[in-house]
Amino acid sequence: MPVALYPGSFDPIHNGHIDIAERAARLFDWIVVAVYDSPSSKRLLFTTEQRVDLARQALQHLPTVQVIPYRGLTVDIAHQVGASALVRGLRATSDYEYEAQLALTNRALAPDIDTVMLITSLQYAYLSASILKEVAALGGDISHWAPPLVVQALLNLHRP
Amino acid sequence: MPVALYPGSFDPIHNGHIDIAERAARLFDWIVVAVYDSPSSKRLLFTTEQRVDLARQALQHLPTVQVIPYRGLTVDIAHQVGASALVRGLRATSDYEYEAQLALTNRALAPDIDTVMLITSLQYAYLSASILKEVAALGGDISHWAPPLVVQALLNLHRP
Amino acid sequence: MPVALYPGSFDPIHNGHIDIAERAARLFDWIVVAVYDSPSSKRLLFTTEQRVDLARQALQHLPTVQVIPYRGLTVDIAHQVGASALVRGLRATSDYEYEAQLALTNRALAPDIDTVMLITSLQYAYLSASILKEVAALGGDISHWAPPLVVQALLNLHRP
Amino acid sequence: MPVALYPGSFDPIHNGHIDIAERAARLFDWIVVAVYDSPSSKRLLFTTEQRVDLARQALQHLPTVQVIPYRGLTVDIAHQVGASALVRGLRATSDYEYEAQLALTNRALAPDIDTVMLITSLQYAYLSASILKEVAALGGDISHWAPPLVVQALLNLHRP
Amino acid sequence: MPVALYPGSFDPIHNGHIDIAERAARLFDWIVVAVYDSPSSKRLLFTTEQRVDLARQALQHLPTVQVIPYRGLTVDIAHQVGASALVRGLRATSDYEYEAQLALTNRALAPDIDTVMLITSLQYAYLSASILKEVAALGGDISHWAPPLVVQALLNLHRP
Amino acid sequence: MPVALYPGSFDPIHNGHIDIAERAARLFDWIVVAVYDSPSSKRLLFTTEQRVDLARQALQHLPTVQVIPYRGLTVDIAHQVGASALVRGLRATSDYEYEAQLALTNRALAPDIDTVMLITSLQYAYLSASILKEVAALGGDISHWAPPLVVQALLNLHRP
Repeated sequence: MPVALYPGSFDPIHNGHIDIAERAARLFDWIVVAVYDSPSSKRLLFTTEQRVDLARQALQHLPTVQVIPYRGLTVDIAHQVGASALVRGLRATSDYEYEAQLALTNRALAPDIDTVMLITSLQYAYLSASILKEVAALGGDISHWAPPLVVQALLNLHRP
Repeated sequence: MPVALYPGSFDPIHNGHIDIAERAARLFDWIVVAVYDSPSSKRLLFTTEQRVDLARQALQHLPTVQVIPYRGLTVDIAHQVGASALVRGLRATSDYEYEAQLALTNRALAPDIDTVMLITSLQYAYLSASILKEVAALGGDISHWAPPLVVQALLNLHRP
Repeated sequence: MPVALYPGSFDPIHNGHIDIAERAARLFDWIVVAVYDSPSSKRLLFTTEQRVDLARQALQHLPTVQVIPYRGLTVDIAHQVGASALVRGLRATSDYEYEAQLALTNRALAPDIDTVMLITSLQYAYLSASILKEVAALGGDISHWAPPLVVQALLNLHRP
Repeated sequence: MPVALYPGSFDPIHNGHIDIAERAARLFDWIVVAVYDSPSSKRLLFTTEQRVDLARQALQHLPTVQVIPYRGLTVDIAHQVGASALVRGLRATSDYEYEAQLALTNRALAPDIDTVMLITSLQYAYLSASILKEVAALGGDISHWAPPLVVQALLNLHRP
Repeated sequence: MPVALYPGSFDPIHNGHIDIAERAARLFDWIVVAVYDSPSSKRLLFTTEQRVDLARQALQHLPTVQVIPYRGLTVDIAHQVGASALVRGLRATSDYEYEAQLALTNRALAPDIDTVMLITSLQYAYLSASILKEVAALGGDISHWAPPLVVQALLNLHRP
Repeated sequence: MPVALYPGSFDPIHNGHIDIAERAARLFDWIVVAVYDSPSSKRLLFTTEQRVDLARQALQHLPTVQVIPYRGLTVDIAHQVGASALVRGLRATSDYEYEAQLALTNRALAPDIDTVMLITSLQYAYLSASILKEVAALGGDISHWAPPLVVQALLNLHRP
């Protein structure tokens, strides 16, 4: 019964993430979406609690997908949930190098866990959480890039 | 019971291929290594029969891996063997673009089959069948890049 | 009255080319689609006459777009038709390097002609004439990648 | 009468920017250089007023080029000035991916506005505002990378 | 008697750096490892003194390698120590673009000094000081990526 | 007395090659330019004798540079001439991946020989022997890309 971990910041979850989660759910028996509870180094817009909450709502149509927060090394949480694979989405070439570096680092740390990469669907190939947040902050229409609850969460942030 | 198809030319199979097959065998219940029986467009060193034979011998330690030749569209053979995923190894950045193009083309042709990419292990990151063949043709030592039977097959080719 | 030249092999023209031609037609007063009448170096599926003919039919809905064959340097034909710009479509990162090299070579040969690059629309980002031809040769469905007359021309080629 | 918008931070304007503006001015009837009045997210060396002022002086030899500051979405200011195209300069491969992402995002937000990319001239292919500022801060000679008034503005900043 | 400068932040020195220094020491008569004493712009974990000290200890097995701190332009310190070449290690494609930009900038500033690039050995191809620090901060095992004294220095930092 | 080997096809030698040879000659005591006497696999325009002859004439102003033809593995000829380094010029990102693969393959075959990469000078960054030959074949002006004797050799080829 292979389990896969899908780790990330999910700040916030968007349609590109949901696409990867849906496709991973067809390949593995159980998917654990692991929301990184960053100590400080990264500037995030939403709290860990909010990010977990938005991801749970956005993925609730997938019965074999579970959302949890995590701290520490990604391979440690993978071991804890019994995952044999990490799932990552690849958008563009520049993603690839970073993801390859991450995958090789994780294999050095935990040779029993492999990284499985899925190519992001074309309609989300240019979508990132940064762009989503920037367009939202400037008042642009983001309704085709994120589910309504995420759009609303972003609008609430920018409302006085 | 997820089945994955690992398609390629395998002209000849080398340690990079074997590494990917071994790792895929840990993620999927059954792996079909599909050796492309190219009609003509690509210049191959070994016949389809030889390439299938070498792959079978090189992978015989993997009980859940089967080697077959195929013609036609990769997604058609995937449907025929009941595969829900295609497996591909990624070496370098230049690979990525070609593989992404292939993956997106195959998804357009068969949305029910996804492509799963694994990063080639570091020690084979620069290894390709072309380099293997070129070094062998020039008399270089290829014993750390391919199993003995493949090394022998290449030596036989270059013996008068 | 700026004129732009859109040069290429167009072997055969597909939806990615048509997308670029349509968008260029909105930016320039007149577009000359120049089909390269290669002496020999490149293996082409269709004759120059056929490629020009398919392009003319596929672009006949664009009143300011004209299709001609050409030989020799691209900048020479650009001068002959009075073009101040070359138009090229960019798909992926690997395209970019080749296109940049071409653009810089052409500027060295003719500093008065600039190359204008448009990003291929997402739905055609992985489409190339090579893939179109390969999928068609293997009997795959290409109807969402090329107009009906081009699909028919490809089918005719592969009919005994 | 096609108008193009050339948006950017221009912190400060340098010879690479001027090269793109000059070439765009040959392709379009009117160029609006739009200096982004960033609310806060980006660390800039010069104020918006200074950046606009330096750009105006550096481009005053181009009668069809106008410099304005702007806030908000780039496509919104493009609509306001009646631009049908955004102009961007491409230096290297790493630029390309970011620019492609930006172009596709902008097309999603405003399908009537296209992004036109020009390859930076070879002599400025490695020039960026960051490098200009870093070399200036360390006392290096920057006189071949920026017009005298920009060199002077940078020297004034680093004078006690 | 050719001297080469190997400049960097070395925050801290790791096995990838040591590999480059060892190989450069075989090509040049004398190597000066120059530790950048950044005024402020970069967030560093160790002080300049600590970084110089760790590098000196990690490279003490190389009799023709000397470690010094430096400020200002890299080409200025190269002139001061009489270096005719800068040495840089290349890991991946994304490194390449940045390093090429740096090399061309330095050649513009000092045409008499050339940049010599060495490909990082495969086993360190994914290793960077950032990854080393991140894995160390999260409690991962870094003993195969850095010499014992550096591992200890990182552990000391994260000890309460 | 370090010797470096600069291997290649040199079909024909152009200004980009000459630039690399000149710069390598400042770094090493002796440079052996090794012209690959390809058995068959590559389509070359000039014979090995002609390529060696053109390179010798084009490099005769460099007293420490010698031109020889070679067959077999590059590392074997490097050993024969006593070279401790291979020199290669890097133009663009796409070059980098191929060159890295080559360098890592050569290090696997001969760990005592390292590959030293130099960034091609900006004015030749887009120049390749293929482009030179193609522009020459189409009657374009190539006088700024190759020395007069090479230009003449190319013109002679295309004269009836």
